[in-house]
Amino acid sequence: MAGLVLLALALGAGALPFEQRGFWDFALDEGPGAPAGGRAARQAPPPPAEADDSGDGGDEASGAFPASGAPDAEAEAEAQPPPYGGLCPFGCHCHLRVVQCSDLGLTEVPKDIPPDTTLLDLQNNHITELRPHDFRGLHNLYALVLVNNGLRRVHAGALAPLRRLEKLYLSHNRLAAIPAPLPPGLLELRIHDNRIRAVPRRAFRGLRHVNCIEMGGNPLENSGFEPGAFDGLKLNYLRISEARLTSVPKDLPETLRELHLDHNRIQTLERDDLKRYGQLARLGLGHNEIREVAEGSLSPLGALRELRLEHNRLRRVPPGLPGLRLLTVVYLHGNRIARVGAQDFCAPPGAKRAHYQGLSLFGNPVAPGAVPPAAFRCLADRLALHFGNYK
Amino acid sequence: MAGLVLLALALGAGALPFEQRGFWDFALDEGPGAPAGGRAARQAPPPPAEADDSGDGGDEASGAFPASGAPDAEAEAEAQPPPYGGLCPFGCHCHLRVVQCSDLGLTEVPKDIPPDTTLLDLQNNHITELRPHDFRGLHNLYALVLVNNGLRRVHAGALAPLRRLEKLYLSHNRLAAIPAPLPPGLLELRIHDNRIRAVPRRAFRGLRHVNCIEMGGNPLENSGFEPGAFDGLKLNYLRISEARLTSVPKDLPETLRELHLDHNRIQTLERDDLKRYGQLARLGLGHNEIREVAEGSLSPLGALRELRLEHNRLRRVPPGLPGLRLLTVVYLHGNRIARVGAQDFCAPPGAKRAHYQGLSLFGNPVAPGAVPPAAFRCLADRLALHFGNYK
Repeated sequence: MAGLVLLALALGAGALPFEQRGFWDFALDEGPGAPAGGRAARQAPPPPAEADDSGDGGDEASGAFPASGAPDAEAEAEAQPPPYGGLCPFGCHCHLRVVQCSDLGLTEVPKDIPPDTTLLDLQNNHITELRPHDFRGLHNLYALVLVNNGLRRVHAGALAPLRRLEKLYLSHNRLAAIPAPLPPGLLELRIHDNRIRAVPRRAFRGLRHVNCIEMGGNPLENSGFEPGAFDGLKLNYLRISEARLTSVPKDLPETLRELHLDHNRIQTLERDDLKRYGQLARLGLGHNEIREVAEGSLSPLGALRELRLEHNRLRRVPPGLPGLRLLTVVYLHGNRIARVGAQDFCAPPGAKRAHYQGLSLFGNPVAPGAVPPAAFRCLADRLALHFGNYK
Repeated sequence: MAGLVLLALALGAGALPFEQRGFWDFALDEGPGAPAGGRAARQAPPPPAEADDSGDGGDEASGAFPASGAPDAEAEAEAQPPPYGGLCPFGCHCHLRVVQCSDLGLTEVPKDIPPDTTLLDLQNNHITELRPHDFRGLHNLYALVLVNNGLRRVHAGALAPLRRLEKLYLSHNRLAAIPAPLPPGLLELRIHDNRIRAVPRRAFRGLRHVNCIEMGGNPLENSGFEPGAFDGLKLNYLRISEARLTSVPKDLPETLRELHLDHNRIQTLERDDLKRYGQLARLGLGHNEIREVAEGSLSPLGALRELRLEHNRLRRVPPGLPGLRLLTVVYLHGNRIARVGAQDFCAPPGAKRAHYQGLSLFGNPVAPGAVPPAAFRCLADRLALHFGNYK
């Protein structure tokens, strides 16, 4: 025993920089407020002989220990390692297969995550990198939350073990690229507010099930989307708001039912811009710089129910609204519309058309008294119109 | 019809400030980057004739609309309002009863949330207030995420409809008080990084099931906890890290299995400080100012497995470690320990005790060579000791 300890001391004293293979995996914690350079002391106990598979205890703390005071002290004192009831990273809260590790000042993905974990919440830490083996063994994970970590790099193999991952939340980080490859079972990707400037061809290859991508808040220009970037996707929902788009990207999935492009720099809607998007039910184009909606550009949108064009630079009501027979909500407030014609909104009497549930025109330089009353004959009721408060 | 429209125009033009009772509930959006004073345009369509109760469509976009292009145009054109398949706030993504509205620049809780919603994610918006009817009808909600909203005020009745709420995440806001009353079914409350200075008596009254509270990152001093603040709680996990505590609060639940008080200003562990906490398996006291661990203060901790005292001002190994028979991890690095005795860690030969899986002593002014080898006779193996890298 004395020899062993001397060996340990020699090993400890001589190991600079420290590289521990066994129990310890030090990343020395300098505290929750520490920069990424700080290191965090963490523990990686050896895996239990049998993974705890029950996962539905009523009120266990972290699922890490049996529930009573010190019942098995005698028995356990003999055992090496002690028979843990499960694993839980120190400081995290593990309950019903959810591992909740937000706000812990972590600089790395903890190692001792129970293999049956389904949701891992690591938001608001300082994890700047996802390494190849960070998620090893987490085959049951369906949701991974890494929001707000200063994340800069995701190694190519890092996400590979996550065969059942459906939700990946990477918003508010410093990623310059969409991680690749992404887990093939992904349903939802959120990567808002990063530093993504380019989406290469087949960035989402193999993602046959994904239905929602939120990638707003990135410095994306139209040229950043390589042709084919969205090939093969069957997206329902796409949001590229708060970016640097100057026109509607033409190459998005035809399956889209919601497209949100608000807070960009889009200047016109050209005739063919929307021709792929016949499935759209909602189109958000508010807070752009749109001066002109070309004749016929809206006509492909046969399924459209909501069109938002508020806070643009339109000088007239977009042409083609009467032809969109399901359209019931149109936002046009905060534009430069000076004139409303009797046929701008409603189909000719007799032609079928849904009634507007909402139509906003305030904040335009048109006087309500100067509009022919018949212009609003296809409103559901008087409360469907918002015309007041204009400048 | 002309009369109706004229009435609408009059209403619109005269309504200053605008207060709409029906379809519109304007809070005019000045954009995602807008300050809380900005207002967001939102839509609150009338509820569908029948709430969509299926909630398990494979890939619907926002659950808001039927899936095909424009099949029922003729039929729908007759209907008022059109037969929506469900509700979803504009811009949010609604899928499988999860309503995901993060990063939308919202200044209010959206109104048109499906009544069968189970998880509502509103994080990273600008919702500064929760009003009495904001969650009306959401009887099935089990998780509500309001992280990072600049939230200042929660009206007394705001959370009352949430009879099934289990998880309430309020971290990173500006709350000066814990909202009251909290939903009685709550299991987990996270309210990290707010402005809470006081926890009044019975702040958590009626919460019979809550097992986890994370309230670190608040300017909490010991005097801020009114006696009885935690009465009746059966907490397993409590975190009050990164606060202003100068001693271990004495009035916490006896049921605690994990207590995290790191990054405070705790200066000593007195003899009776821990006497209530015999169930603790993990105790985190790193990054405090602890100079002294009183004789006997650790002895109530019969269930303790991990003790973290790193980065304090200890001059000696805390007394009583050999008596903690389940203790397998002790962090003592970054202290002022100059001497280690042969009996500091391990029980006398023959007495039963778990073997240490981890013991850190680096960053102390003790030379490995100056320690009697027998001091570490109860280590699991040589890798359990980390002694190197000391200054």
